[in-house]
Amino acid sequence: MEDLLMKKFAKLGVENAPGQEKLQKKKELDIRGEKIEGPTVDFSHGDVDAFEPLPGSKECFDAGVAAGGKQAYTEYRGGYDMRKDVAEKLSAFTGASIDPDKNIILTPGTQGALFLAIGSMAARGDKVAIVEPDYFANRKLAEFFECEIVPVPMDYFGVKDRAGIDLDRLEAVFQEGIRLFLFSNPNNPTGAVYSREEVLKIASLAKKYHVSLIVDELYSRQVFDGREYTHLCAQEEIPEEMVTIIGPSKTESLSGYRLGAAFGSEEVITRMEKLQAIVSLRAAGYCQAVFRCWFNEPEGFMEDRILAHQKIRDDLVEKFKSVPGMHVRPTEAGSYLFPQLPPMDVPIGDFTKILRQLAGVTVTPGTEFGPGFTDSFRINFSQDHEKALAAADRLIQVVERYRK
Amino acid sequence: MEDLLMKKFAKLGVENAPGQEKLQKKKELDIRGEKIEGPTVDFSHGDVDAFEPLPGSKECFDAGVAAGGKQAYTEYRGGYDMRKDVAEKLSAFTGASIDPDKNIILTPGTQGALFLAIGSMAARGDKVAIVEPDYFANRKLAEFFECEIVPVPMDYFGVKDRAGIDLDRLEAVFQEGIRLFLFSNPNNPTGAVYSREEVLKIASLAKKYHVSLIVDELYSRQVFDGREYTHLCAQEEIPEEMVTIIGPSKTESLSGYRLGAAFGSEEVITRMEKLQAIVSLRAAGYCQAVFRCWFNEPEGFMEDRILAHQKIRDDLVEKFKSVPGMHVRPTEAGSYLFPQLPPMDVPIGDFTKILRQLAGVTVTPGTEFGPGFTDSFRINFSQDHEKALAAADRLIQVVERYRK
Repeated sequence: MEDLLMKKFAKLGVENAPGQEKLQKKKELDIRGEKIEGPTVDFSHGDVDAFEPLPGSKECFDAGVAAGGKQAYTEYRGGYDMRKDVAEKLSAFTGASIDPDKNIILTPGTQGALFLAIGSMAARGDKVAIVEPDYFANRKLAEFFECEIVPVPMDYFGVKDRAGIDLDRLEAVFQEGIRLFLFSNPNNPTGAVYSREEVLKIASLAKKYHVSLIVDELYSRQVFDGREYTHLCAQEEIPEEMVTIIGPSKTESLSGYRLGAAFGSEEVITRMEKLQAIVSLRAAGYCQAVFRCWFNEPEGFMEDRILAHQKIRDDLVEKFKSVPGMHVRPTEAGSYLFPQLPPMDVPIGDFTKILRQLAGVTVTPGTEFGPGFTDSFRINFSQDHEKALAAADRLIQVVERYRK
Repeated sequence: MEDLLMKKFAKLGVENAPGQEKLQKKKELDIRGEKIEGPTVDFSHGDVDAFEPLPGSKECFDAGVAAGGKQAYTEYRGGYDMRKDVAEKLSAFTGASIDPDKNIILTPGTQGALFLAIGSMAARGDKVAIVEPDYFANRKLAEFFECEIVPVPMDYFGVKDRAGIDLDRLEAVFQEGIRLFLFSNPNNPTGAVYSREEVLKIASLAKKYHVSLIVDELYSRQVFDGREYTHLCAQEEIPEEMVTIIGPSKTESLSGYRLGAAFGSEEVITRMEKLQAIVSLRAAGYCQAVFRCWFNEPEGFMEDRILAHQKIRDDLVEKFKSVPGMHVRPTEAGSYLFPQLPPMDVPIGDFTKILRQLAGVTVTPGTEFGPGFTDSFRINFSQDHEKALAAADRLIQVVERYRK
């Protein structure tokens, strides 16, 4: 008997997910040469000791605790004062119109927002279009809700000044009846930013074919090189049901508080709150108070932080590009790089395990972002600059030991 | 066309859920007489200003923030140090054997634990047995996962020294093929405690018929009158798949940190972590540090807090019992009372709205706990003692205005 429960969970592996590497079963690996010494670096997520939480965040939290019961027990969609504050700031940032009573929900992290959004916009049997490559949880969520995944390729190496999503393919699959399309902008894992033309086309296609949209803008505050960034939510032509997801866990390093926000169509937000009521009730009440410091950074703080990340990117891209057969698209926004390896003697899953053992460097295998990315890996370079460069050197040494 | 998504959400109302009363649509109500003045009391949840968070909880949180990145990014099932600490304390409390590597997961509140447990132990089409009355989210979760709900009645007024679950009915439905049985002990909303015989029988029936079990022990630290409490998880005969859910949000007033824990079968905990990875990643990292103060209270603190609640219960029960036609079973554990009203001129949903308008008193309608409880309401009496009594007086005045 095929058991539906077991079938669903068989698809939900986490052992390759960031921070979960301890779960990996011991396996015979093709270990070549001696360990390469150096400080361990975990590129699977950002290092909040290297880039510390926003100034004032702890003080906001303390004020939340001091406020007592009314901060501990907020409405499920978040306390009104915080919703109003966040709605105003996100309206100013994106250009969208956000009514704090109708269009926004505060969630436990952007992961929480993504779960609620997908669960509120698609159900069993619905077709969900997903970009390849894109954030690994997108596929897992669609599978958990028993949706049918329809991949849309993104040629991130073949284009310039746009992300490279295949818009003809997107229209073709929309025509066939897609319920929901979700994508991250900037793209996770490549750091590519969708061009204005791409964003407008996605919006108008979604409207035309009545496709619901989720736009994950988690890293949209960290745009490099003065590049233009277009918020889909602020455009004239948008579909009836859409939400944008964003939060302070990345550039702002507030991940320890688990805060996220989703804003958009009133009906979707209402459903998301109904779902949050049975999933986790609310973002931790005291933590919600930390939203106060978001978009409220000291003058120059964000600019400095973005520049510091841009410099790490530059140095890493230079290193990786110097390796014969290795390719990388320089990050346009966010803290991810998604380098492609030269042909190797070992599969990508083994390579990442070997890399941890030999060099103390953790990266995320490309196959987490789409089944075809068997030659790529993702790194989050929000790290101590010097340690990140040293880790990249060790990574390159390991590549040399295993190249075909 | 019946749309599955819309059908699922139609069943997921939240407007009668605790703290969500602002969402109620304006409706013509049969308002009788003048407002009855007095300080507003929200009996839909406990008042953490009246019973403050555990001493030392904020200091634990501060230490978590000071620990930095390793506390912000824990494994999805929770940081090892906290899992070890909590596993030891829960082993000592319940008598169960809990391996911190295999048998425990830390979650965003016990609501988070309940969602993950149900989602990891039942799937579409499975039969789930649920006690009536019991915690309202149980039914909503089973419906969201498209399970078939099989009710099991509890005759909480008809028995003494046991909860009153219909064990014959339980065996009969188990025989018909139940995948999962879940129940809260102490029962929410009645505050009834399952007797040792009831617990042992449930455990052995579940084992005999291969039924998975979820036992919600959220309020199990607040037992009144020195009553015996039996932890099912510590018994010899238990089914292969079971988890126990508990957390520091109630008696300990730590709800603002959103912390819960589930412990039990290794396979279930593994699936719960896989699900948590796509639902919310983890309980807020800094908040996890607050578990340290749990089961670590100053000498006499818990005893005093339990006694203070017992006294509020005594005074409320006396008041309600003095009202002709009103019935209430005195709480045996926890902070809930579930009084039954005399025959009234208005339905229970209107009564709770009228009560808010006329008397500034919020209660939760009985129909949230099972469709048949049209004459009952739940209160959480973890409140300021004097205000709670005054609110009960006003509630009784409103009852008198509407009795048949």
